[in-house]
Amino acid sequence: MNWHKTTLEVHTQGKALYPVTDLITSQIYDWHIQEGMCFLYVQHTSASLVISESYDPTARLDLESFMDRVAPENQPWYRHILEGSDDSPSHIRAMLTDTSLSIPIDEGKLSLGTWQGIYLFEHRARGHRRRVLLRWWGVE
Amino acid sequence: MNWHKTTLEVHTQGKALYPVTDLITSQIYDWHIQEGMCFLYVQHTSASLVISESYDPTARLDLESFMDRVAPENQPWYRHILEGSDDSPSHIRAMLTDTSLSIPIDEGKLSLGTWQGIYLFEHRARGHRRRVLLRWWGVE
Amino acid sequence: MNWHKTTLEVHTQGKALYPVTDLITSQIYDWHIQEGMCFLYVQHTSASLVISESYDPTARLDLESFMDRVAPENQPWYRHILEGSDDSPSHIRAMLTDTSLSIPIDEGKLSLGTWQGIYLFEHRARGHRRRVLLRWWGVE
Repeated sequence: MNWHKTTLEVHTQGKALYPVTDLITSQIYDWHIQEGMCFLYVQHTSASLVISESYDPTARLDLESFMDRVAPENQPWYRHILEGSDDSPSHIRAMLTDTSLSIPIDEGKLSLGTWQGIYLFEHRARGHRRRVLLRWWGVE
Repeated sequence: MNWHKTTLEVHTQGKALYPVTDLITSQIYDWHIQEGMCFLYVQHTSASLVISESYDPTARLDLESFMDRVAPENQPWYRHILEGSDDSPSHIRAMLTDTSLSIPIDEGKLSLGTWQGIYLFEHRARGHRRRVLLRWWGVE
Repeated sequence: MNWHKTTLEVHTQGKALYPVTDLITSQIYDWHIQEGMCFLYVQHTSASLVISESYDPTARLDLESFMDRVAPENQPWYRHILEGSDDSPSHIRAMLTDTSLSIPIDEGKLSLGTWQGIYLFEHRARGHRRRVLLRWWGVE
């Protein structure tokens, strides 16, 4: 069993889903990995991970719109408002999605389904530098 | 450390939670696994995984009803409607639940709690063949 | 590759987020772990795991309030009401959050982001003893 690790940095420009599949795929290729498990971990509480449809870009727009509706800004009951009106909604949206993911690797690549893509979901209005820890365990 | 892998196929018949605990349990038994970690991964963007109560079937009905309410079909703001009115809601429901799970194995079986069952959540109106990747790492 | 395991017990006093970061951190310290992956698994269907902001306590209050709004008690459409009005909402809240988490360990500690804390989310009105399985794999 072998073990690799690195940290990916994703520069965001405000609320949206940012594709990170290629970033992860090329790292796995560089490591000459054959099979095992890939672990992703986001070191933030206002950004998260989502695996969703990568073919039609409107699928992503609807996921973003859903979040604006289920966890909108400026609710009178928010108490955590020090850092702005997007602060509490961003923690709620992160809670509803994923901080960690584990994805199988087979035959040298991520075993994503045909239409699956991996996204970093930025929940803050402004852009940020987001850190995604990438770990791998398996057979080279 | 050892490593096993297989792909489980689950045939669904439209929106509902389908129990898959027995399917996974019997595979672990066949592999003569003693302990380690079991990883599950769904290769779809309109089906997902949920661990929930397995005793009273009405618990499942309420989870299904909740999804119909929080992410209903035919919302005027949906843009991703090419594949039908259940398309965008299915991606939203998948986002709110799990694409990957990691479950400990101890003394030859999954370490589920007393009332826990593992379910594949079909989010599309029609039936599908769903693929669940099963990976295991540990001591035989 | 090495492997450690234990079960943590968390005593809750009704619906709230309970910090468990220190409990996990001290166990990892006791095991003299250097790096690898930490796996957490909750053996319950009415309690779950969340990673969220640990600095300002009001962030937690808003997550709790959100759950009271998105999955309130006493909805006329609930069928799973045998164990009380907090029964079905507790399964819904568990479904929307995490039953399993995988977190990297580096340089002898959990690789949490600066503001991240790990919480057990109790979804039942009464207190419970909750079991969190802790597994670790890596290099000592």
